Amino acid sequence: MNRRRLLTPGPVELHPRAVEALSQPQVHHRTEEARLQFLEAARWLKEAWGTQGKVLLLTGSATAAMEALVLNLFQPGEEVWVPVYGKFSERWAEIATAAGLKVVRQDLEWGSVPTPEDIQELPGSLAGALLTHSETSTGALLDLPSLAAALRARFAEARIAVDMVTSLLVSPVGLEAWGVDAAVAGSQKGSMCPPGLSYVALAPRALAELRARGYYLDLSRELRAQERGESAWTPAINLILAVRAVLAEIVPAREELLALRQAQIEVIYRAGERLGLRPVPERKSPAVAAFWLPEGVTYAQVKEAFARRGAIVAGGQGRLQGKILRLSLMGYSDLYDALVVAQMLEEVVGELA
Amino acid sequence: MNRRRLLTPGPVELHPRAVEALSQPQVHHRTEEARLQFLEAARWLKEAWGTQGKVLLLTGSATAAMEALVLNLFQPGEEVWVPVYGKFSERWAEIATAAGLKVVRQDLEWGSVPTPEDIQELPGSLAGALLTHSETSTGALLDLPSLAAALRARFAEARIAVDMVTSLLVSPVGLEAWGVDAAVAGSQKGSMCPPGLSYVALAPRALAELRARGYYLDLSRELRAQERGESAWTPAINLILAVRAVLAEIVPAREELLALRQAQIEVIYRAGERLGLRPVPERKSPAVAAFWLPEGVTYAQVKEAFARRGAIVAGGQGRLQGKILRLSLMGYSDLYDALVVAQMLEEVVGELA
Repeated sequence: MNRRRLLTPGPVELHPRAVEALSQPQVHHRTEEARLQFLEAARWLKEAWGTQGKVLLLTGSATAAMEALVLNLFQPGEEVWVPVYGKFSERWAEIATAAGLKVVRQDLEWGSVPTPEDIQELPGSLAGALLTHSETSTGALLDLPSLAAALRARFAEARIAVDMVTSLLVSPVGLEAWGVDAAVAGSQKGSMCPPGLSYVALAPRALAELRARGYYLDLSRELRAQERGESAWTPAINLILAVRAVLAEIVPAREELLALRQAQIEVIYRAGERLGLRPVPERKSPAVAAFWLPEGVTYAQVKEAFARRGAIVAGGQGRLQGKILRLSLMGYSDLYDALVVAQMLEEVVGELA
Repeated sequence: MNRRRLLTPGPVELHPRAVEALSQPQVHHRTEEARLQFLEAARWLKEAWGTQGKVLLLTGSATAAMEALVLNLFQPGEEVWVPVYGKFSERWAEIATAAGLKVVRQDLEWGSVPTPEDIQELPGSLAGALLTHSETSTGALLDLPSLAAALRARFAEARIAVDMVTSLLVSPVGLEAWGVDAAVAGSQKGSMCPPGLSYVALAPRALAELRARGYYLDLSRELRAQERGESAWTPAINLILAVRAVLAEIVPAREELLALRQAQIEVIYRAGERLGLRPVPERKSPAVAAFWLPEGVTYAQVKEAFARRGAIVAGGQGRLQGKILRLSLMGYSDLYDALVVAQMLEEVVGELA
């Protein structure tokens, strides 16, 4: 027998505090107990992001949070730069197009990331940029501080919104400190909770730029409600209690957590590279290790070989489907788990290659 | 000591199958196990609604599902009838206005419901109607079969969308059988699960009328993904597993369940009326009993008196705030619980009035 292991880049293995919170009787969201926990969850997220602005919790996936940022920070017709280097950066382009923005799309090799040089090519009228910090589909990590600084140098007023879905509580993040105006993340990644909640972080500059748009995703309405620990619409309160319980443990110890994530990913990449596997990303995110499949080996074979060992892994998405393998320990896991993943990888490659 | 009782019209006491499902290790949504459960949950909901169309599960509150229907079934500028008789029917009007529809709003006394006579007054060019079956803010139940038939008789092509948030699995519902094209509901009411998931039911006529709109709430995209047990965006899969587990028990026994809900509400109303309390609704929904507060008694006093007995109750919303008391047993409860509520009500009124 092998125990079941979730090695996917979200959903992830749950933190025990999340399971505890989710096993409780139903709590009503309009009670003092719920309001205090709601406010505490938002406070921990503000601390994790290091922002003096606000963090909102939305009931919906991170895609909802991305759309909320596009709708509430930009007007139809405005020009935004969207570099596309994976499935999630491509999602920004789709959302912006659906919202009627003029998308200045720049297609890059999947696995690479945009650099400050790319900014020199852009048109002069840019209203903002939609960026992906950790591109989960390729395992690539953007050098966000440099890119945001370069953007800001050329477009002082640009609104910069960033998908930090797999960087928050996985890799260092910044909002004001990095010149980023707004960011999103979700409950099923670095917060080690089930999916269903997303987070929207708004730096003071973004708060000043907010315009009410839509209904369910109207962030101005959420801001008014969440000031007092409520939400505009019935929230997934059980998940909020779970998130609060986990954040209260992991945010105060986040330096150690980020160091662990970095150490884990290095163990996995080292194991893969020793076996001759080629990494997909040019700049590695600690959220997920991505390898090109060896010649003559299919993803179905790899998936099945891991499954025989109790592990659920992830393959490629979009144009990388069937071409890569992705392994993640973003959830409740330690360095010993990285050794287990390395061992499994060695066994699987030995068996198939 | 009193045990804690949730007497609010959502969230409600959880079904034990929901708590069981939510205490499990994380399941990945892109696995065969998850796909089968997703499809089964949708099948049970189709059966509960009695439709030959489709039921979609969305990660978001029922407000998201309402907005999805408005966006995907109507075009900006189209005229829709929205009778307003409580907070949730008013929400339809707000959503339709935000979506750029022309709202033919008819304000009724809160506690009453629109009737077939109201339809004679309407303009001739109506594209559809947005109705609320069980108006949770007043405890009123619409005579939906009669109203939909009258609408259909005058406007053969009208698209009729109905909020069935607190009628699905609480009171009899119908889609094609009643001439209704689409409906929404949420996980934290008759399905006895936590909040965070909403359901969209589409009769065959609505499926034919669907137009892609927005991004997160684009139902055409959801339809394509949910055909195979997936969803367009990462779903609240833990909640879907909980919903499936509960529905598998309650949907096959739904006749008995609806009879219980009716019997419970009668016990509570009888107790209140015996104590001289006046019901708010003219036509009573089995989802929630609503009473006007006795002269000289504040809602804060009532709430506190129930709280001393371990019970969390609900007051009025919007213009009814501070004026009414609402009591519900929509969750995991039986007829003995209705006797407990009646007993508490008697004690509280005896103490305060």
